[in-house]
Amino acid sequence: MAKNKEVEQGIIFSKGPKNNAFAKYFVGQSYLQGLVEDPDVSVSVGNVTFEPGCRNNWHIHHNGYQILLVTGGEGLYQEEGKPAQRLKAGDVVVTHDGVKHWHGATNDSWFSHIAITAGTPEWLEKVSDSEYRKAEENAK
Amino acid sequence: MAKNKEVEQGIIFSKGPKNNAFAKYFVGQSYLQGLVEDPDVSVSVGNVTFEPGCRNNWHIHHNGYQILLVTGGEGLYQEEGKPAQRLKAGDVVVTHDGVKHWHGATNDSWFSHIAITAGTPEWLEKVSDSEYRKAEENAK
Repeated sequence: MAKNKEVEQGIIFSKGPKNNAFAKYFVGQSYLQGLVEDPDVSVSVGNVTFEPGCRNNWHIHHNGYQILLVTGGEGLYQEEGKPAQRLKAGDVVVTHDGVKHWHGATNDSWFSHIAITAGTPEWLEKVSDSEYRKAEENAK
Repeated sequence: MAKNKEVEQGIIFSKGPKNNAFAKYFVGQSYLQGLVEDPDVSVSVGNVTFEPGCRNNWHIHHNGYQILLVTGGEGLYQEEGKPAQRLKAGDVVVTHDGVKHWHGATNDSWFSHIAITAGTPEWLEKVSDSEYRKAEENAK
């Protein structure tokens, strides 16, 4: 039974539709509700919801950064070469320019965060099942 | 009796301490929890909570912008020369460079929003009681 099922309904911000545009950069099902996409604003803002076990591929934000504001459920965040971190509602993560990383739900919980993004993403390889299992086991 | 008292406890993100640093630019009591303040990130992010009737002064973001992500309660937002808007959880507001505006709680409700801010604020005159009453009456 998945934990934090209420996240599936959207926590404060709409869950939005299936995230088809980026599906090839994810393992599992995610949902994306765009919140700000404005040519006069240097960041984009979106609400991302992950079903249990869903995570995005390793990726890098070039000439920019990403801020995650966790709104619900339980998630994981990992930068290359570092142990994964466990995330819960109210947590904030800053990913700096050029840092290879991934984020997603834990295996048994829905997860949602607001993402504030600047720069250009470079999408890399999938987070393999063994990398994901290891993150789950070791995350604090 | 104030509405949305639960906002006083912090909605997802901590309410933080009394916003003493900016108190002179507000009417009424606000609270500020900084979330991101990073020299390598071009925006700052904070969680602002307003007691009922509290609002900030008219102000302008120069060489930047502000994004409000409303997390709880009922609020008001007004740009100079336009009618006020009523805000509720899940609403998103973008204030463009150079636009004179204010935001705050309604008179009978707590209110909270995440603020994502770029550029330099210029703080101007207080929102008078009569301006505020008119905004309350006319906001849609």
